[in-house]
Amino acid sequence: MTIKAPATVGMAIEDVDTPCLLIDLDSFERNVEIMGQFTKEKGLRLRAHAKTHKSSDIAIYQIEKGGACGVCCQKVSEAEALVGGGVRDVLISNQVVAPKKIERLAALATRARMLVCVDGLGNIGDLSAAAESSGAIIECLVEIEVGGNRCGVEPGEPAVRLAKAADAASGLRFSGLQAYQGSAQHIHDFTERKAAIDAAVSVVARTVDMLQAEGLHCDIVAGAGTGTGTYYFESASGVYTELQCGSYIFMDADYQSVLDDTGKGIGEFENSLFIYTSVMSKARVGKAVCDAGLKALSVDSGPPVIFDRDDVTYLEPSDEHGLIDDPGNVLTLNEKLMLIFGHCDPTVNLYDWFVCVRNGRVEALWPVTARGMCL
Amino acid sequence: MTIKAPATVGMAIEDVDTPCLLIDLDSFERNVEIMGQFTKEKGLRLRAHAKTHKSSDIAIYQIEKGGACGVCCQKVSEAEALVGGGVRDVLISNQVVAPKKIERLAALATRARMLVCVDGLGNIGDLSAAAESSGAIIECLVEIEVGGNRCGVEPGEPAVRLAKAADAASGLRFSGLQAYQGSAQHIHDFTERKAAIDAAVSVVARTVDMLQAEGLHCDIVAGAGTGTGTYYFESASGVYTELQCGSYIFMDADYQSVLDDTGKGIGEFENSLFIYTSVMSKARVGKAVCDAGLKALSVDSGPPVIFDRDDVTYLEPSDEHGLIDDPGNVLTLNEKLMLIFGHCDPTVNLYDWFVCVRNGRVEALWPVTARGMCL
Repeated sequence: MTIKAPATVGMAIEDVDTPCLLIDLDSFERNVEIMGQFTKEKGLRLRAHAKTHKSSDIAIYQIEKGGACGVCCQKVSEAEALVGGGVRDVLISNQVVAPKKIERLAALATRARMLVCVDGLGNIGDLSAAAESSGAIIECLVEIEVGGNRCGVEPGEPAVRLAKAADAASGLRFSGLQAYQGSAQHIHDFTERKAAIDAAVSVVARTVDMLQAEGLHCDIVAGAGTGTGTYYFESASGVYTELQCGSYIFMDADYQSVLDDTGKGIGEFENSLFIYTSVMSKARVGKAVCDAGLKALSVDSGPPVIFDRDDVTYLEPSDEHGLIDDPGNVLTLNEKLMLIFGHCDPTVNLYDWFVCVRNGRVEALWPVTARGMCL
Repeated sequence: MTIKAPATVGMAIEDVDTPCLLIDLDSFERNVEIMGQFTKEKGLRLRAHAKTHKSSDIAIYQIEKGGACGVCCQKVSEAEALVGGGVRDVLISNQVVAPKKIERLAALATRARMLVCVDGLGNIGDLSAAAESSGAIIECLVEIEVGGNRCGVEPGEPAVRLAKAADAASGLRFSGLQAYQGSAQHIHDFTERKAAIDAAVSVVARTVDMLQAEGLHCDIVAGAGTGTGTYYFESASGVYTELQCGSYIFMDADYQSVLDDTGKGIGEFENSLFIYTSVMSKARVGKAVCDAGLKALSVDSGPPVIFDRDDVTYLEPSDEHGLIDDPGNVLTLNEKLMLIFGHCDPTVNLYDWFVCVRNGRVEALWPVTARGMCL
């Protein structure tokens, strides 16, 4: 089945069908501009994370207008969609270990610059064999565990061993380190967050030095930051060379609640992505029900917030409904609301279309190119 | 982009790509058979809820082999997908209030028997106008609030007023009541759950009697139960005539934890749906990482359970990873695991394909026909 778009270009925003993803283009473009400027001033590369948007339109925009050198993604199938959409420099910031997936990665490497993370010796051998047989080069970043509590080997010696193996393997190139301190992104307190990143930076620096002593240069030291909250620590570290920010283009409620050193919210990026929803029941006094529930937004970081309204509150989702507290009974049937949701990446993955609006009209429809691509 | 299937028919289960949805056909067929027998013995109609599977293959199977009279769904776009797939009797167990959606519902009613829930007078007028102009009949169930804490008018007089309006409106037919006690489905204690359903049954019975006294017969009294846990109360009530069970075909971890009157788990249905996942990193001692995270399963009802393994535990998801506790370091790279997830409906909605297996081989690939259809 083809998924019908919820809007047509030129349509007034009030006529857009719901629930859907709505991009405020002015805010989106400002977010892209700010991060592009920031990385340029710091002399860093920006490799924007496409796991956030899964869209080749947005990836190309980030590269052409927002100073990005390329993108990251997490899955081979996402990389296929992005390369198919015209992106020519893609890091799969993840391990690719299944034989069939390795074959597909090697095939992609004949069409675009492809990089991948490694954290095991056997995997390096498998990647090398596939690269050799496709005649392409696959670039490898050795992933080190720096508090992300996920993939990656220990920094120091274990990382050096893998780097040497990648450097020696035919068909592969050792290009540097992946050192993503994922969990620090969501530490809301400034001092604790800085301490977490400082600890990561110090072990990364030591590993870079050990590699250098072996004649292995890290062109890329990556993984720093995402949306907001940490990327300015890593950019000031003198160690990281590539930022992998993703959520900065959209923001979400959880990143928005991260605090700066004065205890205030970090304000450089604006919410540019919303769920557009309609009131579909006003049968009960003091309550309303909207058409966006668990299949329209991810609640792993908490329920959504209703944008620009302090008179009504989204209470809880069920599969296809959102229960709204409406103490003043101000909402009316078919009234539209904009929701800021807790976590943008898994929410975007639910939709096939971004409806892009400016000045109250639909200006563009962008497909979520890699929606559902988890292989 | 078309989403590639993770398997081909005839493939050995070990060769299926991950993460994906896996149906154990033997268990699935037994579940369908048991519910079909149960409703037949009780003299009730089964209107299986297609919001769970969003698949016209499964809907047709439930009707042809599992005794269902038709299906429910929650969205007009789902109904379009199901009618397009050959289903001829569909209740949208939800309100349809947006003008364009009402038009599409009226168009569907020219191709299939279409029923919808109503909880407002204005909506009845809008549905009537659209039905008249399409020349079709739309059947209406008046939805009453019986503890679901969502849509629906109060039982008694408010319901009677709406029923009279639907009965009088041209193009519409009053067909009965929708009375879904959604929240009781997940009360894990038997006595509390029975009390919640008994309270609902009593107000439903009173409303049916009041309608009868006005000459309005309820052919359908529906909404009873889902997966398990409550449907046997409603079926014994003598009031409900149609069961809307959905999750019984698959089961999930949350329904599986509902207890019977002896304090034991309710055992009539088997887990037949799994996330198939692979170990993609074994870089750290005592831990493993699999390829199924927040974009591969919904965690609104808690993290998944690893099927048939007591030596390893799924700890927590990130967007594309699942962190696994592996204290004995027994897992190996590319090893496959089956996950029972907390909540089947929003998880199924993440995928385009069901991979159906029997005796270790892929027997069929069923598209998730209405995946992502939320309009």
